[in-house]
Amino acid sequence: MWGKYMNAIVELPGGLENVSVFKYAAIECGIRYPNRLDFSLIYSKEPCWAAGAFTTNKICAAPVILCRERIKNPIHAVLINATNANAATGKQGLENAKLLTKELGKLLSINENSVLMASTGIIGVQLPVDKMKQSLPVLVNNLNTESGTLLPRAIMTTDTFPKQYAISFKTSSGTYTMAGIAKGAGMIAPNMATLLCFVVTDFPVEQHILNKLFYESVNVSLNAITIDGDMSTNDTAIILSPAKPSSHTENDITIFGKALLVMMKKLAYLIVSDAEGGTKCVIIKVIHAANDTDARKAAKSIAESLLVKTAMFGNDPNWGRIACAAGYSGAQLQEETLSIYFDSIPLFKNGTPVEYEKETLIKILQKREYTITVDLGIGNSEFEYLTSDLSYDYVKINAEYST
Amino acid sequence: MWGKYMNAIVELPGGLENVSVFKYAAIECGIRYPNRLDFSLIYSKEPCWAAGAFTTNKICAAPVILCRERIKNPIHAVLINATNANAATGKQGLENAKLLTKELGKLLSINENSVLMASTGIIGVQLPVDKMKQSLPVLVNNLNTESGTLLPRAIMTTDTFPKQYAISFKTSSGTYTMAGIAKGAGMIAPNMATLLCFVVTDFPVEQHILNKLFYESVNVSLNAITIDGDMSTNDTAIILSPAKPSSHTENDITIFGKALLVMMKKLAYLIVSDAEGGTKCVIIKVIHAANDTDARKAAKSIAESLLVKTAMFGNDPNWGRIACAAGYSGAQLQEETLSIYFDSIPLFKNGTPVEYEKETLIKILQKREYTITVDLGIGNSEFEYLTSDLSYDYVKINAEYST
Repeated sequence: MWGKYMNAIVELPGGLENVSVFKYAAIECGIRYPNRLDFSLIYSKEPCWAAGAFTTNKICAAPVILCRERIKNPIHAVLINATNANAATGKQGLENAKLLTKELGKLLSINENSVLMASTGIIGVQLPVDKMKQSLPVLVNNLNTESGTLLPRAIMTTDTFPKQYAISFKTSSGTYTMAGIAKGAGMIAPNMATLLCFVVTDFPVEQHILNKLFYESVNVSLNAITIDGDMSTNDTAIILSPAKPSSHTENDITIFGKALLVMMKKLAYLIVSDAEGGTKCVIIKVIHAANDTDARKAAKSIAESLLVKTAMFGNDPNWGRIACAAGYSGAQLQEETLSIYFDSIPLFKNGTPVEYEKETLIKILQKREYTITVDLGIGNSEFEYLTSDLSYDYVKINAEYST
Repeated sequence: MWGKYMNAIVELPGGLENVSVFKYAAIECGIRYPNRLDFSLIYSKEPCWAAGAFTTNKICAAPVILCRERIKNPIHAVLINATNANAATGKQGLENAKLLTKELGKLLSINENSVLMASTGIIGVQLPVDKMKQSLPVLVNNLNTESGTLLPRAIMTTDTFPKQYAISFKTSSGTYTMAGIAKGAGMIAPNMATLLCFVVTDFPVEQHILNKLFYESVNVSLNAITIDGDMSTNDTAIILSPAKPSSHTENDITIFGKALLVMMKKLAYLIVSDAEGGTKCVIIKVIHAANDTDARKAAKSIAESLLVKTAMFGNDPNWGRIACAAGYSGAQLQEETLSIYFDSIPLFKNGTPVEYEKETLIKILQKREYTITVDLGIGNSEFEYLTSDLSYDYVKINAEYST
């Protein structure tokens, strides 16, 4: 069903600057380090509908609490800072987030409740709130469409490259654009992985549809990737769409949903491909599961297994570890119908090890990207997870910092 | 309640040879490598009751299937082999296990259903069953009490030292002995972590009591440790006790239960202290949880977090990662009542970071063993998990083998 709308979608060079109904700004505020873009803003003069997906961690950052409160309002702006997560900062942390969004509201002549905030960086340290407050007028003055190119860089922490993606899509009422940025699952010690993701579009869509489609796309993108299985205190993904009356056809909505799926899968892919210490980006595809829950459970269990991830790093076609991780996933399975493939090469088929062409397999294992398919041989459900390998550098990046 | 029976328990030097109602043998069969103890036997002329805890992985090894079938019978012998797990070996694997235990039964003039089996080693490869069958008479001829000293070595795979423990305990009917051996969570590629544990005692106890006490002790020992979170296909823990009529007092049973708890916690400790690549052995103690389930959930989540484990390796007192892992554990908690201690040093108290004496803390972090206490500040339940750190060597051991 999705496939037939695919040719309505066109990839665009660049990122946020493609969506010109929004303005952007990013500056060096010196929140934690000098000479580094660390404070940024997404702004729309017209109110927008927002949909959001946030960490489910019970220890969650102040900006996440703030976003949860405000996300149902019409939204004008998202204020973002890197290098300080404003997490485990108690009441003061929440007050600081409120203060900054209130000040920004004044400067932009908008209601403070129409301002969202997102943060990433060190945990347990209060924001340098005076410095940030003083920078707000500069941020507002710098607002323009072109500054969109700065934002993917301004939200980075241990990411090795900025992550952005832009597309256009054609509906019965015209051509629209959509663009997104993300920061990956990198950690800033003594902090944990933090994922931020912001998507903007000029396609107006009713709030309940935006919510539904965003949730569906996050479910198979940002919620179907793993680097180290640790869930952050700050995870935030937000989409903004003009809160204008719209009369889209059902087809138009389907095209928009497809575009959103393409966007979110691309951003998720960019995050995993920049995993800390990662040398591989591997799709774990579970097929013929008894039901959707089982397909997801088995894929997640394999994608998170340390033994599978170290084997990937070592170019080891270790189907035993894969069978083992599927076996303890909780999904219905049995050895007799279980098969495992590396790309198209079977290694284990219906419970029996298969002789394989070693040279072909070695070529697959040495690739940066390949697919491990696990066929449970039971039902008709399938699910894909995207994972990275576990390398020396992962340990190095996360162990060598001393608080 | 347990405490008052503690002085009835005495630590003994050595291992299995202390329990002389059993005989033992270990030989070099050459199952996978030459010149290596790899085939061993525990035997009791008199029938025993057995209790067992096994992997819950749906992909489970043939000897596990066999043990599950036979464990309720009176048991005379446990046949153990290292270097081949007999897992993912299908019907042939199960037939091989049955054949070997049947042959052993003939040699010992006991029913084949009174013979258990356990295996550890490579997955997906059939046992060299002829070679093993030919070795059975040698194994039987070598049976004696002294050979008990060989067994902890004969079950090793990537373990760096043999693991054994022996105690005696005094009851109203006399003094009894108990001894145990274990092999740790090491992997033999292309295999996964495999835990084997065998405990013998000359204390006769009814089967349902043995089952209950063994389950209780495994729950807080072998089921409360983690190295890499991967659950093996071969995990097996078995206890044997003479199936004789006994008339113990309630106090005697309590002393036995206490002795069993001491035994199992010690073996669990030995396993974690020999974790692959491990440089630390850290207790994660969760206190003041709302209930027992929550205490366990939070402790497990922290103990399994890669970010917590890499921080341990790096001597980094990263309370943020600990709070984060507790936060996504599913346990009831709130930032305002959460406190975190390294040994007795608080780093985070009731939701607020605490200034600490850096030098004292550094001394704790550099120790091989210390305790991280996480006070949820809600209820009265507590639970302890034992974990290891995640080092470069873990990655090396598990990545550098190529199948």
